[in-house]
Amino acid sequence: MAISDNVRKRMEEGSWIRRMFEEGASLKQQYGEENVFDLSLGNPVMEPPPAFGQELRKLVDSPGRGMHRYMANAGYPETRAAVAAQLKLETGIEFSMDDIVMTCGAAGALNVVLKTILNPGEQVIVFAPYFVEYDNYIDNQGGASIVVPTDEQFVPKLDALEAAVTAKTKAVIINSPNNPSGAVYSQDLIHQIGDLLGKKESQYGTRIFLISDEAYRKIIYDGVTYPAVFHHHPHTVVVTSHSKDLALPGERIGYVAVNPTCTQREELIAGLTFCNRTLGYVNAPALMQHAVRNLQQVTVSVAEYQRKRDFLFDHLVEMGYRVTKPQGAFYMFPKSPLEDDVVFVNELQQWKVLTVPGRGFGSPGYFRISYCVTDRTLEGSLEGFRGAAQEFSVS
Amino acid sequence: MAISDNVRKRMEEGSWIRRMFEEGASLKQQYGEENVFDLSLGNPVMEPPPAFGQELRKLVDSPGRGMHRYMANAGYPETRAAVAAQLKLETGIEFSMDDIVMTCGAAGALNVVLKTILNPGEQVIVFAPYFVEYDNYIDNQGGASIVVPTDEQFVPKLDALEAAVTAKTKAVIINSPNNPSGAVYSQDLIHQIGDLLGKKESQYGTRIFLISDEAYRKIIYDGVTYPAVFHHHPHTVVVTSHSKDLALPGERIGYVAVNPTCTQREELIAGLTFCNRTLGYVNAPALMQHAVRNLQQVTVSVAEYQRKRDFLFDHLVEMGYRVTKPQGAFYMFPKSPLEDDVVFVNELQQWKVLTVPGRGFGSPGYFRISYCVTDRTLEGSLEGFRGAAQEFSVS
Repeated sequence: MAISDNVRKRMEEGSWIRRMFEEGASLKQQYGEENVFDLSLGNPVMEPPPAFGQELRKLVDSPGRGMHRYMANAGYPETRAAVAAQLKLETGIEFSMDDIVMTCGAAGALNVVLKTILNPGEQVIVFAPYFVEYDNYIDNQGGASIVVPTDEQFVPKLDALEAAVTAKTKAVIINSPNNPSGAVYSQDLIHQIGDLLGKKESQYGTRIFLISDEAYRKIIYDGVTYPAVFHHHPHTVVVTSHSKDLALPGERIGYVAVNPTCTQREELIAGLTFCNRTLGYVNAPALMQHAVRNLQQVTVSVAEYQRKRDFLFDHLVEMGYRVTKPQGAFYMFPKSPLEDDVVFVNELQQWKVLTVPGRGFGSPGYFRISYCVTDRTLEGSLEGFRGAAQEFSVS
Repeated sequence: MAISDNVRKRMEEGSWIRRMFEEGASLKQQYGEENVFDLSLGNPVMEPPPAFGQELRKLVDSPGRGMHRYMANAGYPETRAAVAAQLKLETGIEFSMDDIVMTCGAAGALNVVLKTILNPGEQVIVFAPYFVEYDNYIDNQGGASIVVPTDEQFVPKLDALEAAVTAKTKAVIINSPNNPSGAVYSQDLIHQIGDLLGKKESQYGTRIFLISDEAYRKIIYDGVTYPAVFHHHPHTVVVTSHSKDLALPGERIGYVAVNPTCTQREELIAGLTFCNRTLGYVNAPALMQHAVRNLQQVTVSVAEYQRKRDFLFDHLVEMGYRVTKPQGAFYMFPKSPLEDDVVFVNELQQWKVLTVPGRGFGSPGYFRISYCVTDRTLEGSLEGFRGAAQEFSVS
């Protein structure tokens, strides 16, 4: 009776992730934190770039009058203008501050977007594997998740997408670079998705938003360039944060960017601003809005992450794991040597290596490794990966 | 088609507040900001206390490793323990960190509490006049607002409350010191409310939460002491923020405190922590959690606010306005000299004085003045208040 039926149900569904987290914590207590190799969390061990500390120091040394007060719910004009300028630079599209709403991270951004656009029971399509928190966000805002599979390289299948779109489809969420697979979508793929959504909009006389979660946009390897989504569908909205590119996940600073060519753009932005307020975020944290204004071109060391990826990928492949090489983000999503990914992840726990079963991302039969950790942790995990591989003779 | 029907409807309902805001902005543009006396916003002009700047400087000078990373969704143990210690000091009750969830301000806290407890269609009672954003929060989380009137001094009427409670009542929200009236509830009143809720719980076999919004708890005048709510009902939850006591409204830092004697307390806290995560707040901003840890006994100058209250109250009474003297917060809620509060507030606008009509708080026939402004603004507003009063010969 203490909590609602829906919250209880959703907590129970997610409870085995929680159980694993608790088992990990108890392993750390038993064997000492330094003897457990925790690759289960997307919580970067890297510190923010030095430029962030310099911005913060400037703000503390010369505090502006009223710099901790409420501002307009969409955020400081100066910060929104800086974001717009950066997006213009990246995409060649004429963004203005009026296209930007600053938010409490990408999670806040996504809830704001979904609240703004969803009527009860409308459908939102996601591609598995996906960050399953999307299910909670969609449910919060009264929608229904429709899960569509990807191919062996974690690339969305267009025929499966086409089959899933109905008159009730309000949005499709893509997430590239992807959590958990590290896949980066090609320009061609995004163009085809946009094209398909346009056709379906005409067919049903509806509007279908393409929501692009770009939290990992700046963490991308091998000289791959990130294809801007805006060119391929007018009803495109980007949600993102500085959690990963500036290593500030605890600070909850991100934004929504609306395609300037979106029809009824002004109403949409007014709705996003209204929902940013009424969902209780009110505004993105003030000090962080000031701090990130001048850091739109600053990113943590991507070379460092690429080095870690190469190290782990090469070793896993050598051990016989089947892994698709990630091109971005800081996750790897190998095939589980056992059909039951939870059993395999439990086995890795016996070796004091913590990972997350693929079913935590809508894709049983895989497991997620997070390599945003120290080299010591990565190196220390190899024995466990090798031991578990040999046990189930993956090669 | 750009936004949902519900969001459009709620935006339209609130649009006359927006219109007034826009009219105020256009007045400022026309006559210069310094010639318009804006008493419409609860956005304190006071800067945070010097101790806040000192804490921030310490954090910037000696940044802790990982101090911007994710932490547990309920917040840093050290900050939760500091909040618990302060509550123990204030109430004599044995709070521990396990009773505290750090949130994105009181607005975040309230959404988290409502999401956690409400089943679809359950009712939440509020007392008019009230912060009407509550209606949005209750609607967000699937509940229905039930508005109960107060008496001439803005004190809840127990018989009206008793008549409003049904088997579907899940919570009653109180807000003392009150926005917009400045009323501070007596211990006796809170005891009677708790007593009534206990009886109704027995009668219906339900649980009815008393949610106490205490954002203004530390801004209280005339030597009045704040009566802790926890002693009077086991199912009590406090939601609050440091927006007003530390003048940090833009930073979104607050907390939920659960009564340690609440039945199924652990399930409730687990639910609150889960909803803090899944509503997309994830956690309260990290740097602000560090900063407020050592400031639990620090407050902006309450004497300053009391001086402003006395100045404005004495002048308004002398001009003939009927005002109940506020004992806390930084608002005054005089009777509108005209039956139609919107017409009167428009009249004040002609005098370049900006206030908010009472119907914006569920109480037509009144208007709200916010006196968290500079003395210059307060002094400058007097001519307009006098002029409007004389026009409608209020005395």
